[in-house]
Amino acid sequence: MAEVKSDIEIARAATKKPILEIGAKLGIPPEHLLPYGHDKAKISADFISQQKGRPDGRLILVTAINPTPAGEGKTTTTVGLGDGLNRIGKKAVVCIREASLGPCFGVKGGAAGGGYAQVVPMEDINLHFTGDFHAITSAHNLLSALIDNHIYWGNEQNIDIRRIAWRRVMDMNDRGLRHIVGSLGGVANGFPRETGFDITVASEVMAILCLSTDLKDLEKRLGDIIIAYRRDKTPVFARDIKADGAMTVLLKDAMQPNIVQTLENNPAFVHGGPFANIAHGCNSVVATTTALKLADYVVTEAGFGADLGAEKFFDIKCRKAGLKPDAAVIVATARAMKMNGGVKKEDLGHENIEAVKKGCANLGRHVQNVKKFGVPVVVAINHFTLDTEAEIRAIKDYVATLGAEAILCKHWAEGSAGIEDLARKVVALAESGRSQFSPLYPDDMPLFHKIETIAKDIYHAGEVIADKAVREQLHIWEAQGYGHLPICMAKTQYSFSTDPNLRGAPTGHTVPIREVRLSAGAGFIVVITGEIMTMPGLPRVPSSEKIFLNADGFIEGLF
Amino acid sequence: MAEVKSDIEIARAATKKPILEIGAKLGIPPEHLLPYGHDKAKISADFISQQKGRPDGRLILVTAINPTPAGEGKTTTTVGLGDGLNRIGKKAVVCIREASLGPCFGVKGGAAGGGYAQVVPMEDINLHFTGDFHAITSAHNLLSALIDNHIYWGNEQNIDIRRIAWRRVMDMNDRGLRHIVGSLGGVANGFPRETGFDITVASEVMAILCLSTDLKDLEKRLGDIIIAYRRDKTPVFARDIKADGAMTVLLKDAMQPNIVQTLENNPAFVHGGPFANIAHGCNSVVATTTALKLADYVVTEAGFGADLGAEKFFDIKCRKAGLKPDAAVIVATARAMKMNGGVKKEDLGHENIEAVKKGCANLGRHVQNVKKFGVPVVVAINHFTLDTEAEIRAIKDYVATLGAEAILCKHWAEGSAGIEDLARKVVALAESGRSQFSPLYPDDMPLFHKIETIAKDIYHAGEVIADKAVREQLHIWEAQGYGHLPICMAKTQYSFSTDPNLRGAPTGHTVPIREVRLSAGAGFIVVITGEIMTMPGLPRVPSSEKIFLNADGFIEGLF
Repeated sequence: MAEVKSDIEIARAATKKPILEIGAKLGIPPEHLLPYGHDKAKISADFISQQKGRPDGRLILVTAINPTPAGEGKTTTTVGLGDGLNRIGKKAVVCIREASLGPCFGVKGGAAGGGYAQVVPMEDINLHFTGDFHAITSAHNLLSALIDNHIYWGNEQNIDIRRIAWRRVMDMNDRGLRHIVGSLGGVANGFPRETGFDITVASEVMAILCLSTDLKDLEKRLGDIIIAYRRDKTPVFARDIKADGAMTVLLKDAMQPNIVQTLENNPAFVHGGPFANIAHGCNSVVATTTALKLADYVVTEAGFGADLGAEKFFDIKCRKAGLKPDAAVIVATARAMKMNGGVKKEDLGHENIEAVKKGCANLGRHVQNVKKFGVPVVVAINHFTLDTEAEIRAIKDYVATLGAEAILCKHWAEGSAGIEDLARKVVALAESGRSQFSPLYPDDMPLFHKIETIAKDIYHAGEVIADKAVREQLHIWEAQGYGHLPICMAKTQYSFSTDPNLRGAPTGHTVPIREVRLSAGAGFIVVITGEIMTMPGLPRVPSSEKIFLNADGFIEGLF
Repeated sequence: MAEVKSDIEIARAATKKPILEIGAKLGIPPEHLLPYGHDKAKISADFISQQKGRPDGRLILVTAINPTPAGEGKTTTTVGLGDGLNRIGKKAVVCIREASLGPCFGVKGGAAGGGYAQVVPMEDINLHFTGDFHAITSAHNLLSALIDNHIYWGNEQNIDIRRIAWRRVMDMNDRGLRHIVGSLGGVANGFPRETGFDITVASEVMAILCLSTDLKDLEKRLGDIIIAYRRDKTPVFARDIKADGAMTVLLKDAMQPNIVQTLENNPAFVHGGPFANIAHGCNSVVATTTALKLADYVVTEAGFGADLGAEKFFDIKCRKAGLKPDAAVIVATARAMKMNGGVKKEDLGHENIEAVKKGCANLGRHVQNVKKFGVPVVVAINHFTLDTEAEIRAIKDYVATLGAEAILCKHWAEGSAGIEDLARKVVALAESGRSQFSPLYPDDMPLFHKIETIAKDIYHAGEVIADKAVREQLHIWEAQGYGHLPICMAKTQYSFSTDPNLRGAPTGHTVPIREVRLSAGAGFIVVITGEIMTMPGLPRVPSSEKIFLNADGFIEGLF
């Protein structure tokens, strides 16, 4: 057995091609690639608008079972499948999300894949990259400053300072900023009030950037943001305090998708990264639609398991952007099946066929759910070194009973050579024309009914419960013209239910709605079940303590 | 008379050359230029370290009289002089500071020069540019988060939460963040305490980045930052909570100087931008020293008037970096002389020889001050359209009485053609070998004595007054080994005195010291006189209201 190298060692040893060559593979001329160093670039908005008339390639979603501490490797499989499709002669582009900088200093691993299925330069992608998240932070916080400034200079809009909905953001895990009292220190500093910070990926500006089709659309959506309410409960919009123009200027460059490469020198678009709980958790619409114009195949992923990620990908991103996915891949691992079957993390090293079989119920539920959207499904078993043949066989046999196929993939260890079978299967599914994609619910269904549809059809819940105040709020939004919006569920990613410890495929459980929020700019209603943390903290020993530049100038400890 | 174009119209009409060509003029090979788009690049750290053995070019400081609302055009003259030197056959590089993004949305004009003496792309330079300030914000706030996290998890270092010296920063004018109470909301969010935000340019990390010679030096200085004190008053350093390594990683790219071009396609280094009050107000040492290796002439500027800017340039930057300036240019205008002579802004359009003569006292003081550092001086009269010949003559005659020369410069209207005379004079001064640069005071002078030296020799004050607590604090720092540090004065930029309304050349005034702060990482003692604002606010009608993307995708309203 070969020596096992770490992700960062593999990434550092990569033979990268100049980014202009990578862009040329997709027919992007050099003057339309705005380089950031020699290995990253943005694709110019002009070039993107010139592609409007071209036909679209095929769109493949990579989603997963409910995540477990065992790790599933969704991004790794997305990257591997992109390389695999290129290997079998398809022009394929991978579309994934950008990484948030803050969590890199806490406990998070990288967000650029792993093993021999990575996008590079992984250090840059995990740190400042091309500055998109910083631009989003700036645009968000300009709006925040303008709100307090508006109040300070006379509050012409009659903002009720107790009902300001817009907080501030920072791309850092900083629990000390979750709840603050600001504007203290006297007359010159404004009117003291309670507020706080979220992490940048939780900003509505992030969700807006990822759902906007172009700069005009972006500006319109930024103007639609509800920043506060007046004493009479009428909403105050960002455009009411003339913030939308300057925010758009700050986001002008960030709207252009980033192109990097996989370890096998295939193009990867890494753009946008909204939270997968209070937002929709997908890479940007502009990256995906641009990739579809330039490639035969576009492989993209959605955050968390398929109950949250795929559902939002279909019901929010595809619905709003008019995308029609041709196939879906659900990533599973033998280890995760065992955990879903009741095995503890420390016992995962032992073969346990019964636990695998029991845990497959979770996978089966996701397979059936994705089919409800009319999209054909294949299961990718992401191979781990200690998996046994019997365990893999058990998963394959189980998936066959669902009328689908599970394919063992060894891209982590072997790169594209290890994922050829999956690539061929994906092509067969996509080119079969079997996809009959449609969202789960129509636009004109009442909001509460939409929530129930997701809870019952996807989560297999028995009922949805909500206070009168929540139901009334939904009715008010319907009356205000927001009834057509899709639902963005904020639920634990670890279970189909709202109880993170309830693994497998529970049924008949209750989904209690704690709160609903209107993201009027992004264009969805956020439905919150349970505690949702929008500003993470750092652990007792943050990984930042081990991150430094070594004597050769390389970054150590980032992963 | 030709139609007068706005700065942004001129900048937009510029015929830019590819940044690789601009770099090639200085002998920088393409693989050592890290492009950011086609018109901006960073110079690789490897290339910089390879230049160590080369001889240095000549260093020219551009400084100014005390600023008035009439505008002096220091950056414009710096850029113009760089073009002028290139025009007369010298290989010259301009070294200026980066612009802060936050103030662009308030009232500030651009920081990229004006008229036909600008650096481009001016929109980028004034917004996100290459992300350096965002990196500084991230590094600063990572340290902030680590401090509260350290306390949260048990406070092993016994930080006194009432004596935390490290605040947070944001590159935004946000008065609501000046004073906050953070860590509210219960046990999970830490220990509530008073804190606040400064603007990013006020961060000690900014000063450190600008004074560091390389990444090793940067890491050492970051570790030296005093973040807090214990109950026993001993300092807690950033390295005590293991923050320095990760902060260095975040600043790795930001440490590399940025190269752009002037309207005349000459190279300009735009790098770093510390506040000119609580910090030293100069571009980075690494940019200046690199430029000196690559060019015959390096033209740089320092913030505010010569009493603050030139003094800190000489006593902090040149002292610490071992730089030896060959000549200094003091920028003055007829309008500013009139304001110093008592004329109101609305009356500046009328010829007033007597007021010019009276106001010249301010200019004369600066000329004599700069000579005290052993550096030969020339005065640049930055021409404004309504200046009369008699007014210009009065300034020239006055300066002649000081044994110096004042030269009329029309670079704003004419570019390099309008500043040839100044360029020739600067070359004559620099090549005369007359410069005998030495700082104003020696390292081993007691701290309070250093303050008195600056106040008396530069400000012409009668006395410096300070509470016993301030004097004791200085003694404590001397006992702790910080006595060798230079002084960084934080004083109003509008007057030699601490009274912003006292124009001209006052003498015998009192300099009251309100507070002293130790910037142990940057390596200076900040001496605060009067109110110093480290987080600006926005005006009643912020300029952001008029900033937007026009139908052609160009930014409007930025200036």
